[in-house]
Amino acid sequence: MSNKISVGVLGATGAVGQRFIQLLENHPWFEITALAASERSVGRRYGEICHWLLPTPMPAAVRDMVVQESAPGLPCRVIFASLPGDIAGPTEKAFAEAGYIVCSNASAHRMEEDVPLLVPEVNPDHSALIDVQRRRRGWKGLIATSANCSTTAMVLPLKALQDAFGLRRVFVVTMQAVSGAGYPGVPSLDILGNVIPYIGSEEEKIERESRKMLGTLHGESIQAAPFVVSAQCNRVPVRDGHTECLSVEFEHKPDDVEAVIAALENFRVPLQVAGLPSTPSQPVIVRREPDRPQPARDSDLEKGMASVVGRVRPCPLFDYKFVVLGHNTVRGAAGGSIHNAELLVAQGYITN
Amino acid sequence: MSNKISVGVLGATGAVGQRFIQLLENHPWFEITALAASERSVGRRYGEICHWLLPTPMPAAVRDMVVQESAPGLPCRVIFASLPGDIAGPTEKAFAEAGYIVCSNASAHRMEEDVPLLVPEVNPDHSALIDVQRRRRGWKGLIATSANCSTTAMVLPLKALQDAFGLRRVFVVTMQAVSGAGYPGVPSLDILGNVIPYIGSEEEKIERESRKMLGTLHGESIQAAPFVVSAQCNRVPVRDGHTECLSVEFEHKPDDVEAVIAALENFRVPLQVAGLPSTPSQPVIVRREPDRPQPARDSDLEKGMASVVGRVRPCPLFDYKFVVLGHNTVRGAAGGSIHNAELLVAQGYITN
Amino acid sequence: MSNKISVGVLGATGAVGQRFIQLLENHPWFEITALAASERSVGRRYGEICHWLLPTPMPAAVRDMVVQESAPGLPCRVIFASLPGDIAGPTEKAFAEAGYIVCSNASAHRMEEDVPLLVPEVNPDHSALIDVQRRRRGWKGLIATSANCSTTAMVLPLKALQDAFGLRRVFVVTMQAVSGAGYPGVPSLDILGNVIPYIGSEEEKIERESRKMLGTLHGESIQAAPFVVSAQCNRVPVRDGHTECLSVEFEHKPDDVEAVIAALENFRVPLQVAGLPSTPSQPVIVRREPDRPQPARDSDLEKGMASVVGRVRPCPLFDYKFVVLGHNTVRGAAGGSIHNAELLVAQGYITN
Amino acid sequence: MSNKISVGVLGATGAVGQRFIQLLENHPWFEITALAASERSVGRRYGEICHWLLPTPMPAAVRDMVVQESAPGLPCRVIFASLPGDIAGPTEKAFAEAGYIVCSNASAHRMEEDVPLLVPEVNPDHSALIDVQRRRRGWKGLIATSANCSTTAMVLPLKALQDAFGLRRVFVVTMQAVSGAGYPGVPSLDILGNVIPYIGSEEEKIERESRKMLGTLHGESIQAAPFVVSAQCNRVPVRDGHTECLSVEFEHKPDDVEAVIAALENFRVPLQVAGLPSTPSQPVIVRREPDRPQPARDSDLEKGMASVVGRVRPCPLFDYKFVVLGHNTVRGAAGGSIHNAELLVAQGYITN
Repeated sequence: MSNKISVGVLGATGAVGQRFIQLLENHPWFEITALAASERSVGRRYGEICHWLLPTPMPAAVRDMVVQESAPGLPCRVIFASLPGDIAGPTEKAFAEAGYIVCSNASAHRMEEDVPLLVPEVNPDHSALIDVQRRRRGWKGLIATSANCSTTAMVLPLKALQDAFGLRRVFVVTMQAVSGAGYPGVPSLDILGNVIPYIGSEEEKIERESRKMLGTLHGESIQAAPFVVSAQCNRVPVRDGHTECLSVEFEHKPDDVEAVIAALENFRVPLQVAGLPSTPSQPVIVRREPDRPQPARDSDLEKGMASVVGRVRPCPLFDYKFVVLGHNTVRGAAGGSIHNAELLVAQGYITN
Repeated sequence: MSNKISVGVLGATGAVGQRFIQLLENHPWFEITALAASERSVGRRYGEICHWLLPTPMPAAVRDMVVQESAPGLPCRVIFASLPGDIAGPTEKAFAEAGYIVCSNASAHRMEEDVPLLVPEVNPDHSALIDVQRRRRGWKGLIATSANCSTTAMVLPLKALQDAFGLRRVFVVTMQAVSGAGYPGVPSLDILGNVIPYIGSEEEKIERESRKMLGTLHGESIQAAPFVVSAQCNRVPVRDGHTECLSVEFEHKPDDVEAVIAALENFRVPLQVAGLPSTPSQPVIVRREPDRPQPARDSDLEKGMASVVGRVRPCPLFDYKFVVLGHNTVRGAAGGSIHNAELLVAQGYITN
Repeated sequence: MSNKISVGVLGATGAVGQRFIQLLENHPWFEITALAASERSVGRRYGEICHWLLPTPMPAAVRDMVVQESAPGLPCRVIFASLPGDIAGPTEKAFAEAGYIVCSNASAHRMEEDVPLLVPEVNPDHSALIDVQRRRRGWKGLIATSANCSTTAMVLPLKALQDAFGLRRVFVVTMQAVSGAGYPGVPSLDILGNVIPYIGSEEEKIERESRKMLGTLHGESIQAAPFVVSAQCNRVPVRDGHTECLSVEFEHKPDDVEAVIAALENFRVPLQVAGLPSTPSQPVIVRREPDRPQPARDSDLEKGMASVVGRVRPCPLFDYKFVVLGHNTVRGAAGGSIHNAELLVAQGYITN
Repeated sequence: MSNKISVGVLGATGAVGQRFIQLLENHPWFEITALAASERSVGRRYGEICHWLLPTPMPAAVRDMVVQESAPGLPCRVIFASLPGDIAGPTEKAFAEAGYIVCSNASAHRMEEDVPLLVPEVNPDHSALIDVQRRRRGWKGLIATSANCSTTAMVLPLKALQDAFGLRRVFVVTMQAVSGAGYPGVPSLDILGNVIPYIGSEEEKIERESRKMLGTLHGESIQAAPFVVSAQCNRVPVRDGHTECLSVEFEHKPDDVEAVIAALENFRVPLQVAGLPSTPSQPVIVRREPDRPQPARDSDLEKGMASVVGRVRPCPLFDYKFVVLGHNTVRGAAGGSIHNAELLVAQGYITN
C-alpha cells in the first residue's frame, strides 16, 4: 500500500478537475483515492462518464474509479475543489468542518479574513491564518484557497517588484484563454475570430485578490498591500494561457529596464518553498525577444508553473510596462492548488 | 462621360488597396481611373493578377483595368496611396510635386509639420496646413494623411471627451486584427490560437499621432494636445476590427458614467463634415450591453465608419475606463483616406 | 395596415430564429407578427431577453415584441419553425392541425411520406404532397420542410448534374461551420484549432434527404432517386458556410470538365421559381480559381442563397470531383424555409 | 567524445528544420554536428537568426552553432534535408554524390525508380533500392526519402488493411494543418475562420506515393500496388495534425467493423523495426469514441509517431469508412526522416 497522502477531487469531470487528475498522476506525495462530481455522474465509472478534454490520455488509475457524491465521507485526507460558484462555498465548508484539508480553487472563501489566499512563492507565511481559522471556527480541517487565474499569473512578478521597488499603482489589461471559463464554457460562436471584452467579476477579483496576496500578516489578519490596481479583462480565441499587459508605478522608480529585469530574474523563493515538487526552478522567466511571451509558445515553460514576462520597457505615464503570461489551468488553477497543498505538507498542516 | 473626380489607387493589389477599390465602387463623387502596383504586376489586367481577399466580388469596373507603374503620369486627379513604409515617402512626394492630390494611408509624412493628419469629424480645420505645405514646398498638388488604424478608432471618442472634459492621461491596450498587417502579413503559425504582444512601431504611432490629431492649429503648425498616452499593442486572431481598452484621466472629472456616455453620444460633427458621403450618421456609438463591442459583431456598424464604445465604468486609478472598437481597414485605412478626400472636396482643395 | 402575410417565428431567440428575423426584415411578402420561444422568455420583450448574435443590428420592429408561447393561438398565418429535435415534431403538428402553414427547418417530419422536403429550384412540384397530406390528415394547415443544411448546399449542383447526366454514386465529405450547431452549440474548447470528425445523425440525413429531394413524384408519394450517397461529416472552426468535397459517378459520363461546368452554369429554374423574392439570380455559381470556394470569402454570394462550386476536375475513381459551398444558416436554414414559403405563396398554398 | 552518428540538418531554420532539431535533442543514436540554411543565415549563430516556432525551448546544443552553407563539406555523416522544392533535388543529389547519407523530406526524388520511399513499419524492405541506386549512380552516399505528410498518416492503417484484406479503391479527403505549409506558409488572412480547398500538388502526391509505398519490390524496382486512390485536400485552421476521411473498397470484404478494427489493432511490425528508437509501441491506434480522433487532442499520442484511426463504420458505396489522424511535422516530416535513418542504421546502410 502507498504511503502517499490520499486526495479527492471535487468537480472531477470539469475542465479544472481533469487538470487536477492529469497533474496528480505520478505525484510524489499525493494519490487520488476519491473522485466526486455532480449527481448525474454519481455511481458511474469515471472513464465512462467523463468527456476527457486534455491532449494527454486519461490516467489509467482513475478510469475505473466510481464517481462519488461531493459530501464528507469521501475516503481521503485532502480535498482539491473546483466547484461552480454557487455550491463551492457551502460544500467546501462542510468538508472543512468534517476535518478535511480543503485546497480550493473557487472564489467563495478567498476574501474571508481567516482564510489564506496562497501562492507558495509569494506569501507562504499567510498560511498562519489557518490557526486563526481553526480556533475561530472550531475546525479540525481547514480551507486554503488559490487565487483567480489571471491574478496568480501577475502576482509572481509583482511580488519580485514589490520586494525590490515597492508598488504604488498597477494597470492591467488581460487577454484570457477560453479554458479559463471551464467546459462547455465559452460558445464557439462567441469567440471564433472574436474578442469578448468582458469576463464577469474578473476585474474585481484581480483588483482585490492581488492586494490580499501581496499584503502583510499582522497578528490575526492580512493587511492588504497599499497599492491600487485597475483591471480590464478580455476573452480571446486562445486555448490555454492568459496574457496580461501591465503598467506599474513604483514606490522607488527603478533606474532602468535592466534593473526591472534583474529584480524579476533574481526573484528567489524561501528554501521551504523551493523544495516543493511543483515549485518551478524559475518562477519568473524573463524573455528578451521583442514579441514574447506568447500563449501558444510559452505557456508550458516550467510545466506551466512559471510566469513569463516580456517586453519590459519604460511607460510614458507610469514607470515601466511589461507583458505577463501564465498558464491559467495549471499555475492559475489545478497546479496552484496542488502547489498550495504541498506547502501545507511542508508546513505541517497536512500529515499522513 | 462621368462627371466624377478621377482617382487612382497605389498598392492596388494589397489588402488596403483592395479595400479602396471595394469602397470606391459606386462612390458618388469619385471614380477609379487608374490602378498601380509593384513592378511584376505592371502591364497586366487587374483581374488576372490580383489575389482578391474580400468577401464581396471584385468590382467589374476594375477587372479589366491594366495595372500601371506607381509614378506620376497616372490618368487621375486624386491618388489613394497604401504603400509599404520604405517606398511610400518618396512616391507620395513625387505625386504631390507633380500636382496630384495625395490621400495617404502610410506613416511616412504623417508627422511632418506641414502635413495634415486628418479625421474629418475630429480636426477638419487641420487641412489648413495644406496651404502652408504648398507655399513652403511649391507644390500644386498636396499630401494629406490619415492616421494609423488603432489611433483612428480611439480619436473619435477621445475628441468627444476632450471637448467635454479635457484629457490629461490615456492608457490604451489594443487587440488588433490580422488584416491590419496587410497580405500576406501575419503567418498563420504565429497567430492561430495565439496572441502576439508586439506590433512594430505601433505603440509610438498611437502615442504621437493621437496628440497631433487632437492638437490645435496655431498659425502655421499644430500644437500637440497636452495629454500623455501610453499604448501597448497586441495582435489577436481576429480578421477585422481593432479592440482597445482605454483608461482616461480628464481635466475635469465627469460626474458619473452617464455624463461620459452623454458626451460620447452627443458628439456632433461640423455641418460641412456631416454632409460627406462617408460620414457615419453616428460617428461614436455607445453600447450598453456588458459585453460589447466585439470585433466579429460590431465592426461593420455604420459600414465600418463608426467607433463603437462600450463598458464605460469608473477606473480605480484614472477616472473612467471603456472599450473602443473600430474597423481597421475601413475607418482605419481605406475608408478614412476616402473620407479625407471627401473633406478636401468640400473644402475646395480638390476640384474636378 | 400592411397587406403582407403575417408570419411567426418559433425558436425566435436561437441562432436560426435570429437569422429568420434578420432575413424577414423588409421582406416584400411577409411580416413578422409573432415571436415564440421557450418558457422562460414568454411574456418578456424580445429585445430584452435575446442574446443577439448577428453582425447586423436587431431589427427595430421586433425589439419590443412580447415573446409568446409556442402553441396555436399565435396571431399569424405562417409559422417559421426552428425548434430543437425533441419538441419540433409535436409542436409543428399542433400548428398544422390548427390551420397554420408550417415551414419547418427541423428534421422531425422531413422523411414522412406526405410531407414535402423542398428546395424551390430543385423540386417545386413536390409541394403536391401537401394535398395528400391535407386529405390524409384532415388538416387545414400544412407542414412543408426544408432539408438539412449540408444536404441543401449540395442538392442544387446535384440537381443540375442529375438533369444533364444522371447520378449513380456520390461521395461527400463535409467541413461544417459552427453556426450549424446553434447557440450555445459547439464549446470553444472543442473546436478552437481543432476538427471534430463527427456530427450526430448528419451523415444519415445527407444520405437520405438528398435522394428524397432529387426523387420523383409518383402519384401520392416521392420515389427516391436511384443513386447512392456516402457522407462523412466534420465540424471545423469556421463561423458560417459548409464546405463539401464531392466525387460523383454519373449515368452518362460527361465528356470533360467543361461539360460539367456548363451543366452547372446553365442550370435554370422554372419561371415560377425565378420570380420568388429569395431566388438567387444564379443558384449555382462556378468558380474557376484553383482555390475556391472558401467559406470566409464566398458564403455571402447571392446573399447567401447560392451554392458555389469550384475545383471541378476528373476523379481517378468516379467521374468528376468538385467542391461545394453553401451558407448553412441562410440557404441551409432560415433562408431556405422563407424561400419555401414564397414558393407556397406562388403556388397558392398560402393566401393572405 | 560522443559515439553517436553525426548528423546535419539542411533548412535548419524552417518549420520542419526546427522539428528535426527538437526531435534530435537527446536522440540515442544521432547527434547534430552541422546546421545549414539559406545564404543570409550562413556564418551566424543559430540562436541569433532562427525565429524559433515550437512551444519547447530551443535546445541549448544548437544555440551557438554557426549556420553553414547547404553544400557538401558539412562535418557529418547523415543529412536530414527539408528544403524547398526547387533546390531540394540538386542539393540532395550533391550530398549523396559526395558520400553523405541523405534522408530527405522533400518530394524531388521520391518517385525516382531507384530511390526508396520509406516508412519503416510499412516497407522496410524497399531500402534494397539503395543498392540499385548506388550501383547505377556510382554513389558512396545515398538518398532515402520519406513521403508527403498526408500520405504517411494514411499508409500505416492502409498497410494493416492491405495485409488483411487487400486494397482495391481508396477515397480520401484531407483536412490539413497549417504547419504543413512551413513558415511563413499560409497567411492568417487566408485561413482564420476559413477552409482552403486546395493544396498545390498534394492530391497527386497522395495518389502516387501511397501506391509506391504499398507496392512490392520486384528485382530492381517497386511495382506499385494495384489499388486506385482519389484524394481531395483542404487546409483548415489547425496548428498540427492532418485529419483524413477515408472510404475503402477491399479485395476481400471484411466481415464487419470489428474485423477492420482487429486488423488495425493487430498490426505488427518486423522485429528489426520494433527496436528502433522512434518506432511507436503502437503504430496504429484505434479510438472507439464517436468523435475521435481530433487533431488538437490526439496528434501527440505516441509522441506524434502513431496514426490514430476512428469512426470505423460501413460505407454505403465502398466497404468501410474511417478517419485517420497523423502528426504532420513529426511522423509526416522530421520524425519520419529520423525514423528512416534509424532503419538504415539497423540495416547497416549507415555506420559510424
